[in-house]
Amino acid sequence: MFKPEIKVLDCSIRDGGLINNWQFEDELVRATYRHLSESGVDYMEIGYKASKSQFDPKKFGKWRFCADEDVRRVIDGIESELKLACMVDIGRVEAEDVVPREQSPFSLIRVACYIKDVDKAIALCDMIMDKGYETTVNIMAVSTNIEREIDEALDDLSRTKIPVVYVVDSYGAMHPEDASFLVKKYKAALPNKTVGIHTHNNRQLAFGNTIQAIIDGARMLDASVYGIGRGPGNCCLELLLTFLQNPKFKLRPVLQLLQEHYLPLREKIEWGYIIPYMITGMLNEHPRAAIAFRDSPERNDFVKFYDMLTTPEPDEAPIQKG
Amino acid sequence: MFKPEIKVLDCSIRDGGLINNWQFEDELVRATYRHLSESGVDYMEIGYKASKSQFDPKKFGKWRFCADEDVRRVIDGIESELKLACMVDIGRVEAEDVVPREQSPFSLIRVACYIKDVDKAIALCDMIMDKGYETTVNIMAVSTNIEREIDEALDDLSRTKIPVVYVVDSYGAMHPEDASFLVKKYKAALPNKTVGIHTHNNRQLAFGNTIQAIIDGARMLDASVYGIGRGPGNCCLELLLTFLQNPKFKLRPVLQLLQEHYLPLREKIEWGYIIPYMITGMLNEHPRAAIAFRDSPERNDFVKFYDMLTTPEPDEAPIQKG
Repeated sequence: MFKPEIKVLDCSIRDGGLINNWQFEDELVRATYRHLSESGVDYMEIGYKASKSQFDPKKFGKWRFCADEDVRRVIDGIESELKLACMVDIGRVEAEDVVPREQSPFSLIRVACYIKDVDKAIALCDMIMDKGYETTVNIMAVSTNIEREIDEALDDLSRTKIPVVYVVDSYGAMHPEDASFLVKKYKAALPNKTVGIHTHNNRQLAFGNTIQAIIDGARMLDASVYGIGRGPGNCCLELLLTFLQNPKFKLRPVLQLLQEHYLPLREKIEWGYIIPYMITGMLNEHPRAAIAFRDSPERNDFVKFYDMLTTPEPDEAPIQKG
Repeated sequence: MFKPEIKVLDCSIRDGGLINNWQFEDELVRATYRHLSESGVDYMEIGYKASKSQFDPKKFGKWRFCADEDVRRVIDGIESELKLACMVDIGRVEAEDVVPREQSPFSLIRVACYIKDVDKAIALCDMIMDKGYETTVNIMAVSTNIEREIDEALDDLSRTKIPVVYVVDSYGAMHPEDASFLVKKYKAALPNKTVGIHTHNNRQLAFGNTIQAIIDGARMLDASVYGIGRGPGNCCLELLLTFLQNPKFKLRPVLQLLQEHYLPLREKIEWGYIIPYMITGMLNEHPRAAIAFRDSPERNDFVKFYDMLTTPEPDEAPIQKG
């Protein structure tokens, strides 16, 4: 599908960092920047920007903070038109952490929020835009929100200058029909904005849902190399590039990056199609139970995990099993 | 999606056998039969039926031949409403290999063919139906056929009593739009028949394409436990059951089968998301080049494989790169 207006954002380091607390070697981050530059991808999201007061730098790697000097060092000397992005969470970044755009290596700062915090996200985006950056709002876990909440949030967003709003399938719970429904809803409510899509691969639907979102009008697409990301991970960048017909995108540099850096990394840290995450996706739940279970000695006792999540407590109604 | 008329066929042993020459332990086949019986799945395809004159029994395991006595032994004593199926290829089975239905453990014999052999498939199906079995025609590699050929084959099939015709994405090349196009075409040409769908997971679209096919009217669905099948494998049965809302289907027995038998098997033999198969899928090619490459010392040199398949020979036009 050739839609020249489609933008692709690689979130390998930012989302992948959820697995290893952003403790990537500089060499991998630099290789990612270099090969993505060759691939024609539009944005590389290199991490979260956060105040060092918020997280222990002994426990979290440098891409949890994205200090400008770390970013500059890792991209130094590489010729590139790739724009750099970072993500911020509501309440975890201060205005003084965000320098004016012309002093920064970043072009885009994305704001992730739950729907209840959309008004805070709008205020944060205003600050970010005032400093000269591009911005997006990524409404997380929207598969758990009722339609009234979504409509209200979209109505609030429609009255802002924020250029991009994302449908985010945080729990990997959506089917293509759900992605279609939400992208169409966002498009209708935000006629002058770009709609983005960020999928998770709990049920091997990240790529399929992204394709459906494109058909319905999504024009900013998240993906990651070999699908790296917490648990099941994301839509694979290499798959997405096989679908987009724009000749500016090159698959070969992504394959090279994948085989030289992400395939060896996958031997050390786990992501992909893993049954407990399939189950949390099916149940439209946060993956935290799956994360804990995969860290336990029973990690492959999928039936036990299924029973844990679907057997009602004595005072509960039974959960609908899939 | 609750469509009570949907039938699910598990092809774990038949398609999985393409990886290990059907050399499964009886215990795994028996466990598959037992747990699938509990899961409410409609059919289990236990292998290919073939004359022993066609293949060397020293090289190929018993599920390449599906002798009735082997089948009876492996299911003996298990209470079940699960129907047994096997597949036959054109030219690899003789009429004398097919006993009358009432003497056989099988309910369904499926015929796989390329489109050029549809007339031979029809003759074979006639023989199978005459002997009292259910049957289907599975037109392989249809992603490589031009529309005129497909229309002609469907026209031939429309004038038969064969009850089910499958859309088969042999090369894992289809997007959901392609699956949609073909299922609609088959439905229109075969108004009194059931359309089936068999997908491959080269690009993580097996489940997504199956969902799309259901939306467009496919009512007989192939899947396999943990997606087992040659190379990328098939649509995962456990995923498919999370989507189908029919309460007759139970996920738990499939998870138990998966963790006790297919997860350990996956440690020994390879299937799943593997980049060379992604590349053959993208190029709409038979996976034979990927199979050979994964068997070579360069198995993880994805860039080399990509270059091999996309760099033109001096006298060739360049292949369109994805």
